[in-house]
Amino acid sequence: MKLHQVKNPIDIKKEMNKYFKTIKIEKETVNIESALNRYLYSDIKGKVNIPDFDKSTVDGYAVKASDVYGASESIPAFLNYIGEVEMGKDTDIVLDYDQCVYVPTGGKLPLGCNAMVMIEHTEKIDEETIGVYKPLGEGENIIKIGEDMRKDEILLRKGRKIKSYDLGVLSAQGIWDIDVYKKPAVTIISTGDELVPPYKDIKEGQIRDINTYTIMGAVEEFGGEVTNTSIVKDNYESLKEAVTKYGEISDIVIISGGSSVGAKDNTAKVLDSLGEPGVFVEGAAIKPGKPTIISFSNDTAFIGLPGHPLSSAIVFTVFGKELFNILLNKNKINEVVLEAYCEQNIHSTPGRETYQSVKIEERDGKKYFRPILGKSASISTIVKADGLLKIEIEEEGISKGDKREIILI
Amino acid sequence: MKLHQVKNPIDIKKEMNKYFKTIKIEKETVNIESALNRYLYSDIKGKVNIPDFDKSTVDGYAVKASDVYGASESIPAFLNYIGEVEMGKDTDIVLDYDQCVYVPTGGKLPLGCNAMVMIEHTEKIDEETIGVYKPLGEGENIIKIGEDMRKDEILLRKGRKIKSYDLGVLSAQGIWDIDVYKKPAVTIISTGDELVPPYKDIKEGQIRDINTYTIMGAVEEFGGEVTNTSIVKDNYESLKEAVTKYGEISDIVIISGGSSVGAKDNTAKVLDSLGEPGVFVEGAAIKPGKPTIISFSNDTAFIGLPGHPLSSAIVFTVFGKELFNILLNKNKINEVVLEAYCEQNIHSTPGRETYQSVKIEERDGKKYFRPILGKSASISTIVKADGLLKIEIEEEGISKGDKREIILI
Repeated sequence: MKLHQVKNPIDIKKEMNKYFKTIKIEKETVNIESALNRYLYSDIKGKVNIPDFDKSTVDGYAVKASDVYGASESIPAFLNYIGEVEMGKDTDIVLDYDQCVYVPTGGKLPLGCNAMVMIEHTEKIDEETIGVYKPLGEGENIIKIGEDMRKDEILLRKGRKIKSYDLGVLSAQGIWDIDVYKKPAVTIISTGDELVPPYKDIKEGQIRDINTYTIMGAVEEFGGEVTNTSIVKDNYESLKEAVTKYGEISDIVIISGGSSVGAKDNTAKVLDSLGEPGVFVEGAAIKPGKPTIISFSNDTAFIGLPGHPLSSAIVFTVFGKELFNILLNKNKINEVVLEAYCEQNIHSTPGRETYQSVKIEERDGKKYFRPILGKSASISTIVKADGLLKIEIEEEGISKGDKREIILI
Repeated sequence: MKLHQVKNPIDIKKEMNKYFKTIKIEKETVNIESALNRYLYSDIKGKVNIPDFDKSTVDGYAVKASDVYGASESIPAFLNYIGEVEMGKDTDIVLDYDQCVYVPTGGKLPLGCNAMVMIEHTEKIDEETIGVYKPLGEGENIIKIGEDMRKDEILLRKGRKIKSYDLGVLSAQGIWDIDVYKKPAVTIISTGDELVPPYKDIKEGQIRDINTYTIMGAVEEFGGEVTNTSIVKDNYESLKEAVTKYGEISDIVIISGGSSVGAKDNTAKVLDSLGEPGVFVEGAAIKPGKPTIISFSNDTAFIGLPGHPLSSAIVFTVFGKELFNILLNKNKINEVVLEAYCEQNIHSTPGRETYQSVKIEERDGKKYFRPILGKSASISTIVKADGLLKIEIEEEGISKGDKREIILI
């Protein structure tokens, strides 16, 4: 067994990147109706120019801007009406000087025009004559070929989480099927002789399996899929059997629990026996969450979480999220934060990155946060909270009045 | 036909609340494995106390705190070891003065103790004697019955969006099935003779149906389910037939498009013909998005969106989100925002609430935003953006250096 020191979270994330970058997540093809919140496997390039023809953005008349130069209510410009373009139809009209053509919003512009005058600024004088009451700049009220998207331009990058607006880009391009990362397959193992799943009756002295379900929710949020869950007895042989079996069919195996001292050693020993490099984190300078274990063997990532529900949930928020960022190549990670002022002094221990559950309140247009105090064995604490305050490893705490970013949860 | 004025967004939301509050969304029962991001139909109360027995939060010895008062490395307190509690098992041991009992983390405390000394601060002297090297406060390292959650306490409120941590609360309570709101059933109708869905070939002059897919994504994000989509010809009869048919089987019908002037009037006329109160918004003081239509008939909400993709997407972000907030009784609406400084003056038109797509950049630890300029017919604009800047109705714009909240998208 190698000797391990408690490592700081920045170094841990660096090592995670080094090892877990090599795990290959396959692609799958989905159509855009089920693409929301999936991660792009490769860049999406423009197949066509959008628009693929010069078009009008208003209902009105296609003109040459120079023909209506200086036009006003009192001195309108008079143009010869030579026809109209139908919506959704091609046109072979070519506009000459002093001519105009009716074009609806979205309709194709005839050759020879360079601006659209809105119908509100015109008047039909007779069947062949339109009066224009307003001057126009060149290019006004039209959108040129390729102005929205250009052919071969990279529109959406690999690793992007597909948003609703992105579906608009894809449909505009006539792209129905796209390649996304498969959801990494995750097994959640809870260890403990005393654990009972929520759908079973409980006897006195036993406790509920909580961590399986908080981690399950987080896995789904981060972009994974829980393919297996298992409650495993708290001994070396049972755990070894389980991680070996599930390691082969999962990209990620999460082991939570092992609430006794012996169990923690078990987890590290078992994981280290699975193959090189094995355990590279055994102890993290993070509070709560010191007994975190992270390991890599046979192309599978293993995370050993503390047994206490709150600690387990927070550690997974920090390192589990990072793991999915790596596996799915997430290319833009905007941690969702909110700035607020500290309402009371909060103590922390230097040397450990501390995550404090906080409640946010708004008064007089200013946001304030205060700590929700609770033991790490508690889970209701974090449910009463709006977010997590991260206190950096070198800080001794936060003073009343300090402004901080709160990670929304 | 009633006459309508352009209304400001605050009044529109008030009217939406008045009318749409009466739409009844049914409940359905889901188990906690599929409850993430659903909205609670009723309050969840504690079924049991958590923990349901006084328990230890460490591995060590249960003691009476007064017995180890003043204990130190040089003058330890010696206690009689009278047995141990097994994890997950009940115990009938009662602790007397000068006695101690081994209890693992999470184990049940014997009667008579009031603190747990960590095993690291003890030494086994002989089979019957434990030396304690540190004093303890009463209650230290233990968690009392009901300290995490109390029986009958409201743990999660109606309208709450279920988060991963909430699954921990539910599993701790042994709650497997919960009642959530059904996802409101949504039909998306795109009107236009020229529209072609993304999986079909396109002829010159035709355009892609974009809005169906951006709205589909947003509906999913807001908590609804798109049950039907339909491309409908741009005339009164076809639209009337479609909204009548889909109105009967949907909670919400969204009509987008109608890019020509006539089509907008069609949508309002058709919706107004469906029954009282009918159209109550025909024109919103919002930019982009002035031609927004909102209507209520036969227990169904109807929203008519502008045809331009960007306008349509932004209007749905503003009023569509509000509609789902109302229907699902969402009880806590933290708009996800980020504060940043304006990098260049941005103009807006007073009298209209303006939504400007912006790009966020971080330099020297400070966040800055700049506008992404694009025509409302464009959809790529918003895809290049990180968020939306809301410029209030009375403002004339934003000046360089101003600090604002950006709505993340």
